[in-house]
Amino acid sequence: MSGAGILAGMRVVEAAAFVAAPLGGMTLAQMGADVIRIDTLGGGLDYRRWPVTEDGTSLFWCGLNKAKRSVALDLSRPEGREIAMAIACAPGDDAGLFLTNFPPRGWLAHDKLRARRSDLIQLTLMGDRHGGSAVDYTVNARLGVPLFTGAPGTQGPVNHVLPAWDLVTGQMVAVGLLAAERHRRRTGEGQHVKLALQDVGLAVMNHLGFIEEARRGQPRERHGNELFGAFGRDFATADGVHVMVVGLTLKQWRSLCEALAIQAEVDALGSRLGLDLDQEGNRFRARRELAALVGPRIAAQSLATLAPLFDRHGVCWSRYQDVADLPSDRECSPVNPMFATIAQPGVGEMLAAGIPLDFSAHARVPPAPAPRLGEHTEQVLCDVLGMSSGEFGRLRDAHIAG
Amino acid sequence: MSGAGILAGMRVVEAAAFVAAPLGGMTLAQMGADVIRIDTLGGGLDYRRWPVTEDGTSLFWCGLNKAKRSVALDLSRPEGREIAMAIACAPGDDAGLFLTNFPPRGWLAHDKLRARRSDLIQLTLMGDRHGGSAVDYTVNARLGVPLFTGAPGTQGPVNHVLPAWDLVTGQMVAVGLLAAERHRRRTGEGQHVKLALQDVGLAVMNHLGFIEEARRGQPRERHGNELFGAFGRDFATADGVHVMVVGLTLKQWRSLCEALAIQAEVDALGSRLGLDLDQEGNRFRARRELAALVGPRIAAQSLATLAPLFDRHGVCWSRYQDVADLPSDRECSPVNPMFATIAQPGVGEMLAAGIPLDFSAHARVPPAPAPRLGEHTEQVLCDVLGMSSGEFGRLRDAHIAG
Repeated sequence: MSGAGILAGMRVVEAAAFVAAPLGGMTLAQMGADVIRIDTLGGGLDYRRWPVTEDGTSLFWCGLNKAKRSVALDLSRPEGREIAMAIACAPGDDAGLFLTNFPPRGWLAHDKLRARRSDLIQLTLMGDRHGGSAVDYTVNARLGVPLFTGAPGTQGPVNHVLPAWDLVTGQMVAVGLLAAERHRRRTGEGQHVKLALQDVGLAVMNHLGFIEEARRGQPRERHGNELFGAFGRDFATADGVHVMVVGLTLKQWRSLCEALAIQAEVDALGSRLGLDLDQEGNRFRARRELAALVGPRIAAQSLATLAPLFDRHGVCWSRYQDVADLPSDRECSPVNPMFATIAQPGVGEMLAAGIPLDFSAHARVPPAPAPRLGEHTEQVLCDVLGMSSGEFGRLRDAHIAG
Repeated sequence: MSGAGILAGMRVVEAAAFVAAPLGGMTLAQMGADVIRIDTLGGGLDYRRWPVTEDGTSLFWCGLNKAKRSVALDLSRPEGREIAMAIACAPGDDAGLFLTNFPPRGWLAHDKLRARRSDLIQLTLMGDRHGGSAVDYTVNARLGVPLFTGAPGTQGPVNHVLPAWDLVTGQMVAVGLLAAERHRRRTGEGQHVKLALQDVGLAVMNHLGFIEEARRGQPRERHGNELFGAFGRDFATADGVHVMVVGLTLKQWRSLCEALAIQAEVDALGSRLGLDLDQEGNRFRARRELAALVGPRIAAQSLATLAPLFDRHGVCWSRYQDVADLPSDRECSPVNPMFATIAQPGVGEMLAAGIPLDFSAHARVPPAPAPRLGEHTEQVLCDVLGMSSGEFGRLRDAHIAG
């Protein structure tokens, strides 16, 4: 088993900001690829993004650029852009992969880059497919999700707090690069791969059936915390702890009924309503009546008695944990082999997650810190471009590289 | 340019249910891989998942199994399981990829399958890394997200309505299979890749800085619809339409100030507060005061006058659209080359999305419908396993294959 990661040897150059594209690059980096992030001197658009430490180091930036190398260049000057292009197009069978979410113009134009390396793979992430500006928050608003989030009867949009579209798109960036690299390995052919955040959102809304529901005149309504189409929702215990309880599959549902000893009442309810409650859709139709059976049983017990009862019966459930409790969650610590404590420049000792994928043919790659801005400029210019230390010194003194 | 898709030739066998694993399989299928989904006769756990049509056809199942082939077998009988194993382990350089989110026991045990094909790649998706049960709704509750979603001052959890963790994990399933296939192509070595939904969630909470914020005693609070760390939130127009407005980058922020002609007032506000509002974090600190400048300008105009004004100034914004309006959104129609109208068995003519990735070396693969359950059983048993029509007929008559 190699500890170098399944993508060891692959080199990806990234000129990007915010969540989706940097997350795509980091996904490859955390599998062992050499991902070189190029930023302008002083940092790019996301270099100060909140959350930040007391002295302004961005936890966001550190979180999304782990395990990458950092090159800082003055991209406002031709010589800086020339070096950036040379890095993106540097030779090597396993190199020549370039990722950006900036407009593919100027030094980022695919034609210009391909003129330097004919088998270049470039992935350009855009807001919408026309190259227009769109971010997670605006895409989500357009897709309609915030207007069916929240409690029934309430009004106005409820935004998600996870940038879900960015997160999905970030993984799709990695999918696109891996697929294009596979194609190049088989045929020698590079290409320009385009991906629009808005299209990712529209595709998912289609895949999950939301668009067809709407077309049939039954657009999804606000169901609050209720799982659509089966039984599942939040309840409060005797000691005021919220729990999420799911009876999606029949097995899950039966476990819940057994744990709470309500099967006989559920059967009687089914007879009274004329509904076979073994069918998930009927559990949704009868969700209020079922909640009236489930709720009081949960409300009668403390979490301390409920938790082992649920676990013994194999109920699918979770406590609603406060995010403040995450640092003391056992699974959110180095007990979980995905995590390790790292020394993050600018932050100090902190917990870091590696790639969740566990490849049996490779030892897990321990999470590496994000670089300091420009930490690898000299290393990359010398090793990848074959520059001498003297040449680098001149560029540094001229404030072109730093 | 080939129209067969960038993964044409690759074969993946899937035994899975619900969102993440089937979405991972579909992602590969929509890039041209031959994805064979194996279900038990009569359909698996997700075959009736809502939303459904009037006669009970699942729009959810159709949405997440597009472009796959379907094989139906009686998996409760040894002969059915034997056939399933043979399909998963069938020879072929580009075959031998197996995806499941069922417990890797019985016919799904990796050791048993690898005994049939030593270079098999198996990806097993689990709820938690111990193999325990966890679904999007319970993972989300544990991660703390629902307790910082919703308006400040409100209490109780607010569940997301998008299965965001499933969606991210689905793409990561595709990443894992592509990375393992790359490794096998280079070394000949197969492997067992494991992935836990809960770990995907924990990793993202780490990447976005939520865990470190909490460890530093500043856990994320409820900020309602406000973008954290910069300026962005919802406002209502004179005609009562909600719009999401974002001033994350300085360019976006300046565009908004120009469009609403508030730059002078913003400058005066900055001086009064002693804050440089060109810095994104200060825009978050002054968000209430800034909203008091922005809000009335938006409330004074109808959407019809605001929209062209915003677009002319390059503001990053979107109307909150109702999901009921999506079917009439131009980008959500075959005008967008990602979409096509398909004839979906059990549903009829409907809009379907293909893969959002646009590969320049390949024509876009038009979205193909989901199969009818068992539609390809005979085809796969004869072509992949080399069975005769007579043999298949015997299996069908014995209700082992259908």
